[in-house]
Amino acid sequence: MAQQPLQVAVLGAGTVGSQVIRLLSEQSAEFAARAGAPLEVASVVVRNLDAPRDTPIARELLTTDATSAINSADLVVELIGGIEPARTFVLDALRQGTSVVTGNKALLAAHGPELYEAAAASGADLYYEAAVAGAIPVVYGLRESLAGDQISQVLGIVNGTTNFILDAMTSQGLSYGDALAIAQERGYAEADPTADVEGLDAAAKCAILASLAFHTRVGIDDVAVEGITAITAEDIDEASRSGQVVKLLAIAERGDNGISVRVHPALVPQDHPLASVDGAFNAVVVEGEAAGRLMFYGQGAGGAPTASAVLSDVVAAASHKVHGGNAPRESTYAKLPVLPASDAVTSFQLRLRVEDRVGVLAEVASLIAASGVSIQAVAQSQPGPDGTCVLTLTTHPATEGSQQAVISALRDSDAVREVLSAIRRVVA
Amino acid sequence: MAQQPLQVAVLGAGTVGSQVIRLLSEQSAEFAARAGAPLEVASVVVRNLDAPRDTPIARELLTTDATSAINSADLVVELIGGIEPARTFVLDALRQGTSVVTGNKALLAAHGPELYEAAAASGADLYYEAAVAGAIPVVYGLRESLAGDQISQVLGIVNGTTNFILDAMTSQGLSYGDALAIAQERGYAEADPTADVEGLDAAAKCAILASLAFHTRVGIDDVAVEGITAITAEDIDEASRSGQVVKLLAIAERGDNGISVRVHPALVPQDHPLASVDGAFNAVVVEGEAAGRLMFYGQGAGGAPTASAVLSDVVAAASHKVHGGNAPRESTYAKLPVLPASDAVTSFQLRLRVEDRVGVLAEVASLIAASGVSIQAVAQSQPGPDGTCVLTLTTHPATEGSQQAVISALRDSDAVREVLSAIRRVVA
Repeated sequence: MAQQPLQVAVLGAGTVGSQVIRLLSEQSAEFAARAGAPLEVASVVVRNLDAPRDTPIARELLTTDATSAINSADLVVELIGGIEPARTFVLDALRQGTSVVTGNKALLAAHGPELYEAAAASGADLYYEAAVAGAIPVVYGLRESLAGDQISQVLGIVNGTTNFILDAMTSQGLSYGDALAIAQERGYAEADPTADVEGLDAAAKCAILASLAFHTRVGIDDVAVEGITAITAEDIDEASRSGQVVKLLAIAERGDNGISVRVHPALVPQDHPLASVDGAFNAVVVEGEAAGRLMFYGQGAGGAPTASAVLSDVVAAASHKVHGGNAPRESTYAKLPVLPASDAVTSFQLRLRVEDRVGVLAEVASLIAASGVSIQAVAQSQPGPDGTCVLTLTTHPATEGSQQAVISALRDSDAVREVLSAIRRVVA
Repeated sequence: MAQQPLQVAVLGAGTVGSQVIRLLSEQSAEFAARAGAPLEVASVVVRNLDAPRDTPIARELLTTDATSAINSADLVVELIGGIEPARTFVLDALRQGTSVVTGNKALLAAHGPELYEAAAASGADLYYEAAVAGAIPVVYGLRESLAGDQISQVLGIVNGTTNFILDAMTSQGLSYGDALAIAQERGYAEADPTADVEGLDAAAKCAILASLAFHTRVGIDDVAVEGITAITAEDIDEASRSGQVVKLLAIAERGDNGISVRVHPALVPQDHPLASVDGAFNAVVVEGEAAGRLMFYGQGAGGAPTASAVLSDVVAAASHKVHGGNAPRESTYAKLPVLPASDAVTSFQLRLRVEDRVGVLAEVASLIAASGVSIQAVAQSQPGPDGTCVLTLTTHPATEGSQQAVISALRDSDAVREVLSAIRRVVA
């Protein structure tokens, strides 16, 4: 029964890679029992053999020769990130029939189809739990546990940086800029925070979630994206006053005519399970026709949590290799159309600075009605010394196109001095 | 490529069974794509062909002949519940090499080892996602997604009836009896609520969770159980005042010397993710060494949610049958000892009615210290007209044996008129 050890090549020795190597070595007996064969780290591919590392790695494992490492491995773990050379390495492995575990969301969102096809052609497995929400097993959940259900919606908080920033704005009343500065100081945001705060990281994850939930190919270019840079302290304050919090959500929805895939800040009611997800945590809510509402919650980033997700994939890939059989394939049989952003059904909360005069509310209301959008609620503030007041109004769900037409019309209207904010709402 | 349909025998046509049959028929194309072959309900085994049913089932599918149904099936779905005849049917199928999907927690908690062995001997698969927490994929999570991690603790709200009752007591200030009556009226509790309110249903689920989390065989008899019948409106009220809620928890913990497995009411801090799980929802929090804290949340009961879990298992079992390979086996390689209940480490919140006289606090404190337990906090109420007051004190973690010795000593002490309540706490 003694199985030959499986040779694992780890590409990249950063925070996640070094945790993967540490855990494989510290818990080798457990991994052997779970996978059905010992797992041996045969090589660790790095760019610079002498770079300083958080966790020391045995010198004889390190190599800069990715090709040899991949060619001699039974299993490749790709933790380099970015598109190239990660794409080439992953394709090389898959084309040889060597299974790959990756945490690379950018690669999957940009080149998923090419990778899935290479895996299918050679019979290799491609696993990517760590690419979506760190330790949270949502890829597994969607691919396997909900395989017996029809999913109507996926709502996720999948970016820790923006969740930290919005959380700091909410709990400490900070401006966006001050909250970002704190996030950068503490290492939650990078010096160039664009990928996080503009929603691009969340968009890559959203594309992966939508592909899994709807058995349809969705790439990052299919995702309508809006980041959090326009969110103000007043928006957060106004949200609190109305029993809501602002979260950056990745949303994938199934409609009658296709699927809508988008990332944007949204007002979430305080009693919604996503409202209390704060700081570094991620959570994904899935609505299934039969299952009802499910939520997966946990740490979305960090070396050890992400390593945990990578290692569960390693065990699955190794176990398939030892015991035979097929891993779950990317199933895209549904081929649902991805709707244009303007066809998504949304609802807005708008804050408008208007003249404080008789008839202004009627003007605004008739202007909105003319776009075919109806108003759900409206509240008017006390007038300020400048003779203006603030109207806060929420619209009933309508297409994003109609809602944007409303917002443009309001911007052009003489009755409206300024559209202070326009934030979409999650209707629980 | 056209695969022969897989013949599915469904044992039991109750709430869950009829939803399983409905969904298999309504979404047959999707199931065929996911499983790799069409899934055909070949027979539905019932006790009485003429019993009234919520959802009509085609007469020609119904049979009372379980043996023929099992013998001619490719896959058996057992939804009868209880021990016999479910045990015999499941064993018959497994011994023939026919994979079984079951939602029967009582059967697994009582006869798990026998079933796992029968499955392993013939190479059949045994799946039971629906047995633990309805639609929530926690069996999958523990068995596969966390296969790369070392789990230290599992805390679950796994019984909807008791969660509903405690929730009604909390939100409406009801007594236990009144809340139970409402739960019975609304169909959340049975006429004989014993299995739920005494914690037996949760204990069966706890045994399954502990087995999965710690790769160790744990049966229902290993679980120390205390139900919710002694919880009073005052307990709930006192919990609210101190920022806590009372939940019935299933707890499986790994200690230095073995594992502790228990079900009891516990005080949970209001900012703990389990605190806001209310009504019919279930949730399971898993702490992994690498993954950190994960939570799985969703509907714990009900026909459609449970059917969703059954069907994900059906897809997995069918897919293994079509594509070959082994399903995840029950892995019990760790064989950790299950500690006696008295060795569990717990912390209590105690409410004592004491004489309102000088020195009573010192007497109580020295009595507690004598048992080797230390006090974390203490508060004394205003004295009442009867010359007594209430001491609310929390103890630091210590073994359950020491804590129980403290409680006995307090009951016997002259300084203490009455131990009003003793509820364990979750230390976040």
